Formats: sequence, C-alpha cells, structure tokens
Amino acid sequence: MLKPKLARDSHTIMTEMVLPNDTNTLNNLMGGRLLHFMDIAAAIAAQKHSNRTVVTASVDNVSFSEPIRLGNIVTMKAQVTRAFNSSMEVFIEVWAEDIPAGVRVSTNSAYYTFVAVDQNGRPIEVPAVVPESDEEKARFDSALRRRQLRLVLAGRMQPQEATELRALLLGESA
Amino acid sequence: MLKPKLARDSHTIMTEMVLPNDTNTLNNLMGGRLLHFMDIAAAIAAQKHSNRTVVTASVDNVSFSEPIRLGNIVTMKAQVTRAFNSSMEVFIEVWAEDIPAGVRVSTNSAYYTFVAVDQNGRPIEVPAVVPESDEEKARFDSALRRRQLRLVLAGRMQPQEATELRALLLGESA
Amino acid sequence: MLKPKLARDSHTIMTEMVLPNDTNTLNNLMGGRLLHFMDIAAAIAAQKHSNRTVVTASVDNVSFSEPIRLGNIVTMKAQVTRAFNSSMEVFIEVWAEDIPAGVRVSTNSAYYTFVAVDQNGRPIEVPAVVPESDEEKARFDSALRRRQLRLVLAGRMQPQEATELRALLLGESA
Amino acid sequence: MLKPKLARDSHTIMTEMVLPNDTNTLNNLMGGRLLHFMDIAAAIAAQKHSNRTVVTASVDNVSFSEPIRLGNIVTMKAQVTRAFNSSMEVFIEVWAEDIPAGVRVSTNSAYYTFVAVDQNGRPIEVPAVVPESDEEKARFDSALRRRQLRLVLAGRMQPQEATELRALLLGESA
Amino acid sequence: MLKPKLARDSHTIMTEMVLPNDTNTLNNLMGGRLLHFMDIAAAIAAQKHSNRTVVTASVDNVSFSEPIRLGNIVTMKAQVTRAFNSSMEVFIEVWAEDIPAGVRVSTNSAYYTFVAVDQNGRPIEVPAVVPESDEEKARFDSALRRRQLRLVLAGRMQPQEATELRALLLGESA
Amino acid sequence: MLKPKLARDSHTIMTEMVLPNDTNTLNNLMGGRLLHFMDIAAAIAAQKHSNRTVVTASVDNVSFSEPIRLGNIVTMKAQVTRAFNSSMEVFIEVWAEDIPAGVRVSTNSAYYTFVAVDQNGRPIEVPAVVPESDEEKARFDSALRRRQLRLVLAGRMQPQEATELRALLLGESA
Repeated sequence: MLKPKLARDSHTIMTEMVLPNDTNTLNNLMGGRLLHFMDIAAAIAAQKHSNRTVVTASVDNVSFSEPIRLGNIVTMKAQVTRAFNSSMEVFIEVWAEDIPAGVRVSTNSAYYTFVAVDQNGRPIEVPAVVPESDEEKARFDSALRRRQLRLVLAGRMQPQEATELRALLLGESA
Repeated sequence: MLKPKLARDSHTIMTEMVLPNDTNTLNNLMGGRLLHFMDIAAAIAAQKHSNRTVVTASVDNVSFSEPIRLGNIVTMKAQVTRAFNSSMEVFIEVWAEDIPAGVRVSTNSAYYTFVAVDQNGRPIEVPAVVPESDEEKARFDSALRRRQLRLVLAGRMQPQEATELRALLLGESA
Repeated sequence: MLKPKLARDSHTIMTEMVLPNDTNTLNNLMGGRLLHFMDIAAAIAAQKHSNRTVVTASVDNVSFSEPIRLGNIVTMKAQVTRAFNSSMEVFIEVWAEDIPAGVRVSTNSAYYTFVAVDQNGRPIEVPAVVPESDEEKARFDSALRRRQLRLVLAGRMQPQEATELRALLLGESA
Repeated sequence: MLKPKLARDSHTIMTEMVLPNDTNTLNNLMGGRLLHFMDIAAAIAAQKHSNRTVVTASVDNVSFSEPIRLGNIVTMKAQVTRAFNSSMEVFIEVWAEDIPAGVRVSTNSAYYTFVAVDQNGRPIEVPAVVPESDEEKARFDSALRRRQLRLVLAGRMQPQEATELRALLLGESA
Repeated sequence: MLKPKLARDSHTIMTEMVLPNDTNTLNNLMGGRLLHFMDIAAAIAAQKHSNRTVVTASVDNVSFSEPIRLGNIVTMKAQVTRAFNSSMEVFIEVWAEDIPAGVRVSTNSAYYTFVAVDQNGRPIEVPAVVPESDEEKARFDSALRRRQLRLVLAGRMQPQEATELRALLLGESA
Repeated sequence: MLKPKLARDSHTIMTEMVLPNDTNTLNNLMGGRLLHFMDIAAAIAAQKHSNRTVVTASVDNVSFSEPIRLGNIVTMKAQVTRAFNSSMEVFIEVWAEDIPAGVRVSTNSAYYTFVAVDQNGRPIEVPAVVPESDEEKARFDSALRRRQLRLVLAGRMQPQEATELRALLLGESA
C-alpha cells in the first residue's frame, strides 16, 4: 500500500506561445494542437503524483468556446483529482492571453485519465490522492461519476449499474 | 436552404507514420499527438461537407486502449454523421499497423464536432446530411443523444430535458 | 519464391494539410516538402507490398506545375507497379484541394523506387506484383524502360543496352 | 511616465518535456534548444511587464553544467529584474526533473534582455520595476553592473567608465 | 537584357545535422527528408543568381546509394549551371559525415530546376550564366540534353526533336 | 598528447532559411531560435576539431542588433579558436540576407564553448589549436581572457586572479 499524496503536490503549470504552425487559416490555434498541449501538461501532473511513466487512457468531452490567436500565450494548470488503482484522473484548465492587448480569458477545461506503467508497460499501483481544499474535495467526489460515464461510454459498464451517474442525470439518490 | 449532401461525400482517409517526436519514452505514440492527427482528419471531412473553413467545437470522450508504436502506420477514416445548423458531427476511426509484422489493430474511435465559419469567423449554415448505409443511418440517429450529452456536460442543457440521453442511460422511452 | 501479390493490395491514400512551415514567402507549398510527403506515402505502399522495412533507392524526374496553397489539402495515392528482386517501383499521384473554393487539381505524379531490407539493412527479396486493371498492366510494362533510364542515368548501364528505352525514344522495336 | 509595476507581476512558469528531436546522440537536451526554450519563457515575462511586443536584445553568459535527459521535464521561472527606458532585463532559472527517478536538479540560470517595440518595431518606453523581496532588490541593484558589462563587451562603453563593473572586479568603490 | 552573372556567384553551402525525426526505424535519414534539404539549398543558389523569389519547377532523377545515419552531418553544395529565360538549373552535391568516426562519403547529386517569379507569382527573366571552370563549362553544355529529357518525360517535346538527348543515348551527332 | 590541428580545419558554414515557425508576431526570427541555429553550427566545428561527440558548455554574451526577417537566408561561419584540455572555444559569425532585395548584413557574433566527451559522456582530451592568420592568432590570444571572464561569472575564479581580464578592463599589465 503506497503512502497517499496531496492533490496539490502534482500541481503543474505549463505555458506555450502559439506559433504559426499551430494555427489554421484564420490564424487561430487548432483544437487538436491544444488537445496535444493539454495532454502533455496533464501527463506531467500524473507523473508527479505517481513517480512513474504514464500513458494516456482517455480524455473526457472537451468543448472549445473561445478562439486562441497566433502569438497568444496559452497557460495550462493541471492537477490530479483522484486515483483508482493504477489510473489517475487529472483536471486541467486553460487560459489564453493576448498580453499586448491586456486580455486574458478562460478557454477550456478537461479531464484526462492516465495509467501508470512499469518498464515493461504494465499497469502498476499509484498512491491515493488526498484532497484538501473545497474544490479539490468536490472534484475528488465527482470523479466517481465521471469514471462511470467513461465506463458506460466505453461499453464496459451497464447504465443501470452507474449509480453515481444516474443520480446526477436523474436526481436519484446514488 | 442548402442542398443536402450524402454522408459519404465527406469521406476522408488520412495516413501518418509515427515519428520519434510523436512518441513518449516507451516509444509509443502520445495520446495528445493522436488527438491532434484525428482533429486534422476530422476537420477535412467537415470542410468537404460544408465547403467552408471549420473550427473545432468539441471532442467527445476518447479512450486509448492499444499502444501505437514508433514506425507504425496510423490510418484514420473520418466522415460527417449529421449536421445541426452550422455545426457538424464527424465520426472518426483509427487503425494502427505494424506492416513488417503484418499486424493491424483498431485502436480508437471518436466524435469531433466542428462549426463552419465565414471569413469573419462567424458561424454559417451547412447542408443537411443524407445517410445511406445502415451504419450511417444508425450514427445519424444516435447523433441526437450524443449532442444532448455534450450540452448537459457543458452545462447548457438540464439533464431532465435530455430526453434522448435519458432514454439511453435509463431505458426510458425518449 | 514468395507468393505474388496484387498491385492494388499496396494501395495507400495519404492526406496532409499545408501548414505555414511547409510554405515559401509566396504562401505556396515548397517543392521539397512535397517530395518529402510523397516519399512517405510511397514508402508505406512499398511496405505494404513487401511487409518489410524499406529504404528509398531513387526518385524519377518530378515536375511541379501547379502551386499548392497554404491551407490546401494534399491527397496522395500510391501503389506498387512492379518488383525487381528486392526493389519495388511505386507510382504516386498528387491532388491539391482548396475545399472552401471547391477547387481540386491534379498537381503531380512520380515514380519512387524502394529496396526492402532485413533487420541488418541488407536487401531482401520481395513478392512479384500482379497487375489487374489496364492501367496497372500498362505501368507494369513500362516499368522496364523507366528502370533502364534510371540505370543509364546512374551510369550503371550503357545506353546501347537499354533496348526498351531506345524503343521509346527512337521508335526502334525493343 | 508609466506607472511602475511589481517585479513579481511578470512572474512566468514554463514547462517543457524533452522530446527526441531536442536531443543529441547522447540523448541529452542540446544547449541551443534550451536557449530557445529560455528565450520564449523570458520573452513572456517581458511581455507581461510591458504589455508590448518584445524582441530579444541580448543574452548574457550562460553555462551548462548538468545534462538534461530525453523525457525529463524542464521547468523555467522567469521574472523581470529591472527596466531601462525601453529595455528590460529578465532573470530566468531552469530545473530539470526525472520524475520517475525522483530527481530534480537546478541546471542553469541566465539573464536575457528584451526591448519593447510598437507596431512599427520601434522601441517604446516601459514601466519601471518595483522590487519587493530581498532577492528581487539584490537583482535590481546588480542589474546596473551587468548592463555595464554588456555595453563594454558590445564595444559601446569604455571599461574605465564602467564604474559599477570595476567595483565588482576590482574592489574599487563604485 | 540582364547582365550575365558568374556561375560561382550562386555557390551555396548548407549543413544539417540529422535529427531523430528525420530518420526511419533503421535510424537512417529518410530519402524524402534529404530531397527537402536539397530543395532548400538549391533554391538559395537560384535566389542568389536571380535575386528573385524562386519556385521549384522540377527535380531530375535522384539515386540514394549510401545510408546517412542519425547524428551525421549532411553538407550540400549547390550552384546554378545554366539559365533558360526564367528558369535555372541547379546542380547540387551531398556529402554525409560521421565526424567522430572520421568518415565522410559522397552520397548524392541531383539537378533541380527553379523558375524566378515576380510578386504576383509570374515568371520573370533571369540573367544568363557564365561558366568559368572546366566542370562548370561541362555542366553548362550538358544542361541542354537534361532539359530535353525533362521535356520529353513531361510529354512537352517529341523524342525525335530531342537532338541532344538522342546524341547522348544513341551516339547520333546532335 | 594529440597532434595539434589547424584552426581552419574546423571551419564550418551553415545556411538556414527563416521559416514561419521561427518568427515572432512581427515576422522576425526569434532570438532563441537563432541561438539554437548557432549552437548547431558551432557544435559541428567543435566536432570537426576533436572528432568527438561534443556537448555545449557555455555561450558568452550575445547581442542582437539587426532584425532578421521571414524568408531571409541566415549564414553562419564557425571555427574553433583555442582548446583547453577537453574544452574548445568556437567563434561564430552570422549574416542575414534578403536576396531578392540584394541586402546582406552582419547581424551577430558569439563565442560558444564545447566539451568533448567519450561514449560514457566523460570529458576527453582534444588536440591543441594552431592559428595561422592574424585574425586566428588574435582570437587565440584573447581566448584566455574570455575564459577568465567565464570562470569569474560562474563563480569559479576570484576576480583578482583573472589577470588577463583585469588587464583588459583596467589597463593593468597581465
């Protein structure tokens, strides 16, 4: 049994400048390139928590509401929310900043899930996560229903077994 | 009212060879890099359907089950499933092939959503999608509940209004 | 003696979006970058035919007639035409598409030659190619005189021995 | 006269994962690639202080003592130390982390200087820097002699006029 | 009529280090990546001769005989051989060097053709080339039959009109 | 004791075309990207002198005075100036050329220092440098005081021991 670790010990800040090759013909950051940046930031957080090599297991639904422009600074903050055996859920938030214009907007957030692996690529146990702040506790709790949604969507859990998820969508008590 | 177009007219095949910079220290393709490839393939399909510049609006939950190795050939097939005003849902499937070893595996599938925009970046109407094959028809029909799930997850629809989604998860009649 | 394989079993489609770093100061795709894309597409076709690692042996004369613009979609179709011991000739065609403008043009075609190698990098035998369609048969037949031209240009065959090539250029019967 | 700004308001954290193309044949991060990362991190700090587009004016002597390995996480912290009219000195520190091995080392530090420019690329005034912590005050004070060393090395100041620098090297009172 | 320029005034040396992303799974430089390097080196030589923006018009048959390894230094020498109205033929030679092993080999040579264009992308006249050395003179003379071969291969000249080419291949007097 | 080698035997010319991803939002080459180019050119010169793998040990103060534009050709000339046991100082000069405009400017020069290493990454002796021209001799002589400045700046030499450096800055006889 590994010693549990604080959620905030995995806190990771990553900053990228949007370069021409990251943009589409409207000079906006392409969504797929942002998903790539976010994956790296989230993987570093998962590495910090597990002190292991990690591989991406899934990314939850991500919406892109705000265009991010060529030359903008993209800041990502990633932190582990909860661990399940060898897997870790990471919450990641993204801001885009046009510094000369003095404009900074929240553009995205997402949950990525990683699996810690040993040198042969086999899953290996990771420490439990200890949430401290109210927000960390809320994300720790809701991690259960996000996990159920992932399993239902991947066809690995029957909807009727997803009690946490049903409670969310239906107002049933979990 | 634009003339509807066949789903298969947007069919797109994209092939990539996994290069060193795409891989992690286990020599496997990084999940974020694959999401980037998939976004480009799916965007081309959405461009073909709309004959417009398109921007990524969202990606649904994606699971990564099979490692893809350095030197593997990644093949993606993308096709529009259904349109809603200015947005299009694209279904994309991914295969990885180790050709010298004669091994080809299905590794992923995902739904990306794009919005067609005019030259000022404003949303603009796209043609309706006409499904033909049974699979195209099934994806056309289920597009409605995936859309509801996206709206619920983005906090833009109340769970109780998501009748299609409830039907899926709860066995209620939609 | 390896079992012959159909030409079309090596058929490969590759799609690329022209990004800023691929372009010159006129915002056109640089010729060398296109040669690089074509080499990868053709190598995949040769891998499919031989189920081996392949290395580029030569590229025949390539002409660039149509500019390909930033943001265009480049589609390449590659297929093995004929095999000679350990080498394979691949025919590759290129189209460029400005999808919002609804314009698609044929821009190039070329023949690349690859050698299949074993794990020590030594040439190794590949299957014979079985052409089926009329076009496949025509390319299979003409592969002989392209091979003679390559050998003459590389100084490894005397012009007077290149009977097929002479027939082409001089109207002699080969 | 622009309103002075706190040094820490320019604080910037940037994180990069060392990828194969960043490394030499020993699998270590190339020095020039690190200088490139550091330039971007420092430029963001200078942008934050000036709310302007900035261009690199100089980098002071940088030593590379510790090899940084493929797969390591490189963390850079950059902050403006002092401003002189349109130019800003930025101090940047670098750490490399092999997270699975639990090893984190300080590898480098450097001073980069940037000039803020307007839309025509002409130098433009920036706010003064207000140092708060003891370390910020010490770097603010010593910025003067680093500036003299830069000017002497660039042949734009006579050594005998560089009173601060002489004081440092010779023990003279400045 | 533009003032003719010396062939050697266009002489260009370009050096590249082979990085991981340039290599295949055997750790050898991919042929297409080398064609890309060569195109840039040759384009610079054509720019020097014409003082114009240039676009690649064609590349003649290129053979790859020697593998070039990861970490090798690739040196390219390019020089204009002859001009025809708005087009220029450039001869380019390639060497690969494993410096720690003390091994340097000639790996390739090729002829690229470029067209000089004005700001609207339209062909524009370039200066004639003045060859000086014996080698420059020989390449200037043989440029004519390479041009005929290109035109015949592109289907823009009948083989019987290609008098220079026939002379080469058939021993006829041109 | 290794046989000394001529300074000019390490002479290296490297040429790069400035591509979109190398530039900032003013379309100028980013300083950090240029430092990266210079590091590669200088490393090749140090490899040539030592016939060893080399790692960057330091870069001296570099000033950036002239903007280098998108599409410009950057030419670097690098040559070893002097060796100290396992380390080599390399002098590197940079020119930028807007060929269509017929403008070529000297933009930078710098001193990089490299250490030769064996296959385990341990420092290993390199040949002494034999300067021939007056300029080579002058750079050979002044290498001593640049080395003292590096050691003082790195805190590995007391200013009062840096006799060469004091002579330069103070007019003392060394």
